[in-house]
Amino acid sequence: MNRLQAPLFDALVKHYESGPVGFHVPGHGYGQVYNLESSIENKWLSTIMKLDVTELSTTDDLHHPEASIGEAQKLAAQCFGAEETFFLVGGSTSGNLAMILAVCEPGDLILVQRNVHKSVINGLKLAGAKAVFLMPQIDEETGLSTIPSIEEIEQALKLYPEAKGVMLTNPNYYGMSTNLSRYADLLHQYNKPLLIDEAHGAHYGFHPAFPMSALQAGADAVVQSTHKTLSALTMGAMLHVQGNRISRDSLREVLSAVQSSSPSFPIMASLDVARVMVDRYQSDWFEPGVASAEAFRKWLAHEDRLIKVLQLDSKSAAYDQLDPLRIVLRDSTGTLTGFELQKMFEEYGCWAEMADLRHVVLVWGSRTGESNRLKLQDACARIERFIETKPFKNKELKVSAGLFWGNGTSSRLKPVEWNRKKREHHRIPLDEAEGLEAAEMVIPYPPGIPVIYPGETLTKELISYISTLTGTGVKFQGAVDNSMQTIAVYPGN
Amino acid sequence: MNRLQAPLFDALVKHYESGPVGFHVPGHGYGQVYNLESSIENKWLSTIMKLDVTELSTTDDLHHPEASIGEAQKLAAQCFGAEETFFLVGGSTSGNLAMILAVCEPGDLILVQRNVHKSVINGLKLAGAKAVFLMPQIDEETGLSTIPSIEEIEQALKLYPEAKGVMLTNPNYYGMSTNLSRYADLLHQYNKPLLIDEAHGAHYGFHPAFPMSALQAGADAVVQSTHKTLSALTMGAMLHVQGNRISRDSLREVLSAVQSSSPSFPIMASLDVARVMVDRYQSDWFEPGVASAEAFRKWLAHEDRLIKVLQLDSKSAAYDQLDPLRIVLRDSTGTLTGFELQKMFEEYGCWAEMADLRHVVLVWGSRTGESNRLKLQDACARIERFIETKPFKNKELKVSAGLFWGNGTSSRLKPVEWNRKKREHHRIPLDEAEGLEAAEMVIPYPPGIPVIYPGETLTKELISYISTLTGTGVKFQGAVDNSMQTIAVYPGN
Repeated sequence: MNRLQAPLFDALVKHYESGPVGFHVPGHGYGQVYNLESSIENKWLSTIMKLDVTELSTTDDLHHPEASIGEAQKLAAQCFGAEETFFLVGGSTSGNLAMILAVCEPGDLILVQRNVHKSVINGLKLAGAKAVFLMPQIDEETGLSTIPSIEEIEQALKLYPEAKGVMLTNPNYYGMSTNLSRYADLLHQYNKPLLIDEAHGAHYGFHPAFPMSALQAGADAVVQSTHKTLSALTMGAMLHVQGNRISRDSLREVLSAVQSSSPSFPIMASLDVARVMVDRYQSDWFEPGVASAEAFRKWLAHEDRLIKVLQLDSKSAAYDQLDPLRIVLRDSTGTLTGFELQKMFEEYGCWAEMADLRHVVLVWGSRTGESNRLKLQDACARIERFIETKPFKNKELKVSAGLFWGNGTSSRLKPVEWNRKKREHHRIPLDEAEGLEAAEMVIPYPPGIPVIYPGETLTKELISYISTLTGTGVKFQGAVDNSMQTIAVYPGN
Repeated sequence: MNRLQAPLFDALVKHYESGPVGFHVPGHGYGQVYNLESSIENKWLSTIMKLDVTELSTTDDLHHPEASIGEAQKLAAQCFGAEETFFLVGGSTSGNLAMILAVCEPGDLILVQRNVHKSVINGLKLAGAKAVFLMPQIDEETGLSTIPSIEEIEQALKLYPEAKGVMLTNPNYYGMSTNLSRYADLLHQYNKPLLIDEAHGAHYGFHPAFPMSALQAGADAVVQSTHKTLSALTMGAMLHVQGNRISRDSLREVLSAVQSSSPSFPIMASLDVARVMVDRYQSDWFEPGVASAEAFRKWLAHEDRLIKVLQLDSKSAAYDQLDPLRIVLRDSTGTLTGFELQKMFEEYGCWAEMADLRHVVLVWGSRTGESNRLKLQDACARIERFIETKPFKNKELKVSAGLFWGNGTSSRLKPVEWNRKKREHHRIPLDEAEGLEAAEMVIPYPPGIPVIYPGETLTKELISYISTLTGTGVKFQGAVDNSMQTIAVYPGN
């Protein structure tokens, strides 16, 4: 096997160039269906459709890899430093579901960071598992939540020796990451697997400026969104495994259950290509992005700027290191919320990843160049001129639900049972729900982290936080009433 | 809303053509990451990457649609005759999982056709549901299994009034379909939902030569692989719903649990485009394929031909109608197995969808033209000349596991509990397993229909069938030992 080759991608190109006469799915027949159309659809779709094939003797079977997919996965394992790597076509969602389902049978208990992506919670529900939530650390400067402290985890491990493992998310959406080596060592003292949702850290470990990856730190299973920070197509992700604390057979079984039986070959091939770029160019692959991001931070560092960036040298007890390719901006005058700031960037043609009440988050591409940086700086300057025309507000914006978690609830380090059984509940106005148990998840998206779970108590602070969010046009997933004027609650006592 | 427009596809093109400066996922930045590369990767991937975006104010959110995705789904509902349509990016797999999870809470009972795609079985496992299996009808001419008789279903409905519904697969992989109107009427007399896996029938009802669709017949929920027989990208599928026997909220909830939180926009857009083609061209869209398939059948009908096709006018008690775009071939001399015949077609550059011991199945594209037909006929003629040089075998090939189901088991119309709890089991040689309970699924793929489930008794006939399959190079999913020399069994009594 040659790390400089992309065997799956090459196999698809070779198959197409052999001039196959197709009598198989997909029905577009290598895009011919649109070639017959002199249409705009043809312009956009026909090229990729030439690689959009199915399980053939020249391709392979994701759920039973023994040719190019198997090779591509082995090369990815070498590149990322795993013992075994599984390609995912359902995004990190499918990887998080698989990790939980592989370690938890119905009734099993697992230790889970409170502020996880909803896919982890859905994994718990489908698994019928018990979760003991670990409270995050809160960064003072921003109010954002990161991973739980190692002390919090050790306390839980002592309380729950039966726990099947620990599930953490690192880095967070804002690029705040913690060196996981001590976490891995602790878990392995207890001979339990450390499961990491590293969706936002697929590039970690590949450039001196980047944090160490979870695999390098010794995590047992790691899910990465290859599409987020490397160059795969959306939904292209990977699940990396090392050690023997997780059954590979169980992982294989659940992965073939939660993923399509006809997975997208273009997405799988794009994983192969994303990997080969890293192998071919090594840290050079990221130089343009690292350099332009650094230049942008320098430009913003000037004292006269009203838009401020979270500085790479910020010190915090809640994390060890920031991702140089994740840029967190805010209006330091407090005049614009993060949502308003994001909207103004869009008016100038600059599209951010997400916003919260206070911040705008930019995902800086590994090869984002100077022209994009200059356009962004121009937008910043224009927005600052707009801010200067406004009355100076300096609002104190609360930014994180993490500030409220645990308040008024007695659930700290108590197991919560998850399953799909529906309990009797009713809907009431949100502002009348204080002190009651929520009967639904409320998930502002992005970032897609539930701010309350069924069974948790609705505190005054959390209700006012949700009300504040609704005023900003943020979207809610999971809730039946997307306006969040009402919420489902269990009957009070 | 205009049925001749593709609002989601148009929104993506419009967004890209606005010249966005992207600081969001996916990390390939509209494919720019490869533009910097003067590479072959760029040639194949950069065009689609321009449409591969994320949830932006110009796009929409699949899990909370209120703009172009919502419109595209409404137009699809109108086109396919549903009250509501959900776009699927995880293939029919995600739709089958969602239907089962939406109707079954843990412990609930559901009536399920025995010969279903593995995704239905995985849905039962994740739901923790009880299944009562309904035995298929067997077509005498081919030995292939179709859907259960209406009498079988009525008997089960009387035995299990608590059943949450009935899950059937129609058509089967070979294009054998049954008019479901009487099935829907029966279910609705009992006020239970009829759930249909119509993965291979997305084109049904759009051309006079095609069978009626499950929605037209009155099914409550229908899953279709839009990528299989219409023109979407692989993994692009739809879940159609009508009536109030299934909770739409429950469906929404489970769909957002089993599908990626960052769904592929190219796949969603290709669903929009596949729909608009049908709306723009109506039955004309399928004329080229219908005509060339008919010409091919005529050519094969000549008495001297050794390769025979399953005739559209074949009469069977096991189905009502064959799909004119699904062509089932066999070597009438029995000299070549279906697998061998498929392999020879490949040597002549013709790629079939799948084979079994006796048949080769062709998926005939909706716009497959004369040139492909002539290449296929040329391949047939060459293969026939090869067959003539071989000793005439006329093997009697058993083709369907359906022939063995129920034999030697007492499980007929008895509930089977499904969950993810692992029971003690061990591996033994397959040829020593007769009379024992299987502890794993055995899934020849394609078609991906399990031939035995955990808890079912391994009969002599089934063991010899599996052994025959292993000799043919067919692949097995789900089994730990892909060679099928050994099988996991529960301890005997």
